[in-house]
This record gives sequence, C-alpha cells and structure tokens, in this order.
Amino acid sequence: MSLDETVMKPHDRLSAHLAGDMERVNVLIRERMASEHAPRIPEVTAHLVEAGGKRLRPLLTLAAARMCGYDGPYHVHLAATVEFIHTATLLHDDVVDESKQRRGRPTANLLWDNKSSVLVGDYLFSRSFQLMVETGSLRVLDILANASATIAEGEVLQLTAAQDLRTDEDIYLKVVRGKTAALFSAATEVGGVIAGAPEDQVRALFTYGDALGIAFQIVDDLLDYGGATETIGKNVGDDFRERKLTLPVIKAVAKASDEERAFWRRVIEKGDQREGDLEHAMELLARHGAMEGARADALRWSAHAKDALSALPDHPLRTMLSDLADFVVARVS
Amino acid sequence: MSLDETVMKPHDRLSAHLAGDMERVNVLIRERMASEHAPRIPEVTAHLVEAGGKRLRPLLTLAAARMCGYDGPYHVHLAATVEFIHTATLLHDDVVDESKQRRGRPTANLLWDNKSSVLVGDYLFSRSFQLMVETGSLRVLDILANASATIAEGEVLQLTAAQDLRTDEDIYLKVVRGKTAALFSAATEVGGVIAGAPEDQVRALFTYGDALGIAFQIVDDLLDYGGATETIGKNVGDDFRERKLTLPVIKAVAKASDEERAFWRRVIEKGDQREGDLEHAMELLARHGAMEGARADALRWSAHAKDALSALPDHPLRTMLSDLADFVVARVS
Repeated sequence: MSLDETVMKPHDRLSAHLAGDMERVNVLIRERMASEHAPRIPEVTAHLVEAGGKRLRPLLTLAAARMCGYDGPYHVHLAATVEFIHTATLLHDDVVDESKQRRGRPTANLLWDNKSSVLVGDYLFSRSFQLMVETGSLRVLDILANASATIAEGEVLQLTAAQDLRTDEDIYLKVVRGKTAALFSAATEVGGVIAGAPEDQVRALFTYGDALGIAFQIVDDLLDYGGATETIGKNVGDDFRERKLTLPVIKAVAKASDEERAFWRRVIEKGDQREGDLEHAMELLARHGAMEGARADALRWSAHAKDALSALPDHPLRTMLSDLADFVVARVS
Repeated sequence: MSLDETVMKPHDRLSAHLAGDMERVNVLIRERMASEHAPRIPEVTAHLVEAGGKRLRPLLTLAAARMCGYDGPYHVHLAATVEFIHTATLLHDDVVDESKQRRGRPTANLLWDNKSSVLVGDYLFSRSFQLMVETGSLRVLDILANASATIAEGEVLQLTAAQDLRTDEDIYLKVVRGKTAALFSAATEVGGVIAGAPEDQVRALFTYGDALGIAFQIVDDLLDYGGATETIGKNVGDDFRERKLTLPVIKAVAKASDEERAFWRRVIEKGDQREGDLEHAMELLARHGAMEGARADALRWSAHAKDALSALPDHPLRTMLSDLADFVVARVS
C-alpha cells in the first residue's frame, strides 16, 4: 500500500486497487446499455450510470473475487450485473417515491417520464440477467434470483410497513435487506462463488455484505434525525416528513406511552404534521434512548461484518473491506 | 380426439388435453405468488392471475414439451415462468398506458396504485427467474434472458415509435416481437429444450411461436379498424384514438399523398383529432389497400407457423397447434 493509499477513504482505496477491473466493468456497462433501435434506453441509463455513483456494489464483487484468487473474466460480468440491478431499482424507486432528485440531479422520471423509468428499468433487469447467464454458473444465477426476490419483496413490504406503527424490528430488517443488504450480500457472495472459494469463505462473504448493508442503512436512518457526530450535508427530517418508520422511530414507538403513541399515530400513520412536530419527535427519540439504541445496533452490525472477514485469506483487499465497515459507521460513532 | 373435441376451439382443446399439467401449473403459480410478509403481493397478483386469462402462453410451453415426449417435472415450472413474465409485463404496461381496464375488470394501478403495480411486477419477474433457475438448464435461462431483453427493448421502442410517422414495417416487427411474439416463441422453444428435442425441432418450435405471435398482433391491429369478417365485441377505433401506428396505418402512410401525410401527422403525431377523422382514416386505409395488405401479412405469418410444425412429431397436440394458427386469423380471413 502506498503512502497515498493510507490517507484515502477505504472506498477510494478499493477503487484505486481495482482500477483495471473497474475500467473493464465500465466498458461492459456502456456496451450493454446501448440499444440500436431504442435510443431512449442509453439516454435514460447514461443519465444515471454516468452521474458519478460510487459504484460500491461492483467494487464489492470485484474485491471478493480477487481476494479469493480469481483470475478469470466473469467477475467483470457480475460486477456489471449488480450495477445494472442497482440502477434498475433506482429507476423504479424514483417512480414509486415520486422523487425529483437523485445524486444531485433531476431524476429520470422528471426528465423523461414515469413510463421511460419503468420500461428502461425493466430493460436493465433483462440485460443484467443476460450478463449473469454468460457466466455459465447456475449457483450464481440461483443467488441472484433469490436476491432479486428479496429485493422486490422488501420493496413491496415497505409500501405497507413504512407507515404502520405495528412494524417491529424484525420487519424492519426484512425491509432493509430488501432495500440494501440483499444486493450487497449477493455482490460479495457471487464474487466468492465465481472464484471457486471454499464454502466457509463464501458464507463469510455473504455475512460481510449482509451486515455491511444493514449497518449502512441504520446509519442512514440515524443521520436523518441528526445523529451525525460531525457536520454533514444531509437535511434533517426528510424521513420524518415522508412518514417513514425508520429504526430510531420503531425503537421509540416500542417504548411509547399512550400519549406518545397517539402522537406517532398522528404524524406517521395519518400524516397530519404540524409546526414543532419534528422537534417533538426528536425529543421522544432522545427520551427513550432510541438514537443510542440504533447507534449501538449499527456498530454491532459493523463489527459483525468485520468478524466475518477473518475466514477470508489475508489480503490487502481484506483490510480495505474491514476499513470500509468501520468507515460506514464512522459518522455516527 | 373425442367428438366433443372436434367442435371445440383449438385453445379449449389444448386446455382439455393438458388439463392435468395445467392444474399443476396453477398450483405452482398460487404457491409462488404467496408472500408471508407482504400480503399486497398475492392481492395484486390474484386480481390478475385469477381473472380468467386464457393461459395461452403456459399452454404453448406444455404442448411443446409434451409433443416432444417430455415426461419430467420442469415443463410445469417453465409454464408458470412464462405466465409470471406475462403477468408482470401486464402490470407494468397498465402503468405505462395508464389503463383503467384489463380483462373486463379495473386494473391493479387503479385498484391499488402505480407503486404496487411497478413493485409487484418486479416481484413476479424475480419469482419467474427463481422458477427457471430450478430447471437447472442454462440454455433455458439463456433463451428467457434474451426474450426478456427483446420484450423490454420492444416496449421502450414502442414509446417513441408508436407516434412517429417514420416508423416502418421493420420497426413495427421489432415492436410486435417485443409486445407479443418474443414470449410466444420463448414459451414454445423452452418446451422443446427441456424435452431434449433435436435442434431442428427446437428451431421449428421457435419459428411457430414467433409467427403465431406476429399473426396474433396483426389481427389485433386489423380488428381495431373494423377488419373482422364477422361481428365481434371489440370497439373500433381505440388504437386510432390512442394514436398508435399499427400495421394498416403504416401501410397507408407509406403510400400517402402529401395531403394525406398531413392528415396522419395531425391525428397521430400531434394528436389533434376531430369529428369524422376516424372515418377519414378508414377511407384512407381502404383507398391504399392497407387493410387487405395487413390481412395478407397475417395469413402469411399464420401459414408460416403451420409450416414450421411439419418438423415436429405427428401428435394430437401438433394438430391443435396447427388449428390454433388457423383460428388466430379466422376472424379476418
């Protein structure tokens, strides 16, 4: 590791270490999002794919495969696959959430229309499907099929669970796996599978991705209620205004008095929000230790991710993945 | 064949002949559309799946497999797969077209919301993906991945091509393959593949499904401009009012005078439709022989489908598939 690398964020170190592979992933992505007859497809996709997303999921796949000694060509296909799946879910999410901005730019549904977002999302799913079939690995296909079902089920579950005060931490975990962790864990697991890694390493890669994704999402929930330990750019209260039952709220609702429960019912279930409600909600989160509880959960998932890595070969990439698990929770720890 | 069967429509004869298999398909469909945690999924899906669709696509898969001597279990999985893909595309289509009715009932996007239609569609795609992985056949996965890409590309193409007077018959065919024929041809082809049929039979099954699907769609276009040779229930002029460039219109535009072209530009491209325009459009279709031309195309595709069947084993199901190709064009011939 160069001196430069030691002061870089773990994600940037992964990017630097895997720059050659990642360039091949980008070439493949551009090649496969082309469509001879439907120019709308590369227009919409490029808007999102070229918008400077962090490419975290493909990096996880590449890192897992390389760490397990893979030197074939198909980790590139799988990295492109997970990025296509991710992009397709973003397109559909923006339609579902009626979002106006993504990565600081207007969303595709705003620039074009909902139709284009739905259909181009479907196109990317089908392209990702073709890419994974090219690897010729039925086990990879099985993992990605199951991840796709978990993602889709989690998204539907979120539709009904997000504003239902009966949502408990078990359901929360299912939603979070659907939203984030299932694609993280599939990304790392298929990297190990394509490399022919031993079973205990494949399991460890799954566990790492799953725990990292959950930690990532809990931190996102915390930041939305101002849980950062340093200044960040994020607006406080977006989830509250969108009436989302995130982990801190679920913890506070579990300990709520009758009066507090009536408050949550009004602001989350009924969506009747008034001046001062956000501040009152944050008071309730503090009163019941909900922020500290969620923070402890995030740190526990991060530690679980790092522990899993001990089953994997000693490798510079393993250190970076471990540092990444620290980095994900750094803003709240 | 019983005496009863000779007076039944070919589709009903297929259903009767394959009733045992089809019952297993229905059991599998109900089992796989269940979701323990997201009850919205079976609600939305049942609304569509149980609504008495004709189940034509799964029947094609079962017929192809049985005709080629298959006696394993996986034709049932593949039949459920194509029905799930079909249902998922209907859910997304209704969002894209802002439809209010499907199979005589309110659409899911109207009963629930667009979000549910998008996400439950995604869920069904992922479930279909799991079902096909269970067959363990990479070739089947390859065929269905390619069909999915053709379907999605055709749908996007239709967004831009449907109201563009430059759309020619080549582009029309691509859109029709995406809308209809790609899933028909994949349905028949995978039936042959899972049965281990010889290559020439697999090719013949693809050709049959492709040609049948194209004939089916051209007939649909004709009926919309009153091309039926007997009375049918369908409203005339829906495609016209929705400004769709269907085959008869494409043929009439290709032969249009400058004045006629201005008319088509106004009513299709600009959507400025007035009293009497539908009647004038139908006059132009008649003037340029566009209805006769499209009718001849439908009959040619139907004949092509029947010809392909000659490569397949002599079998009662082969006769039914041949009769089905006749039946599809019977209303316009």
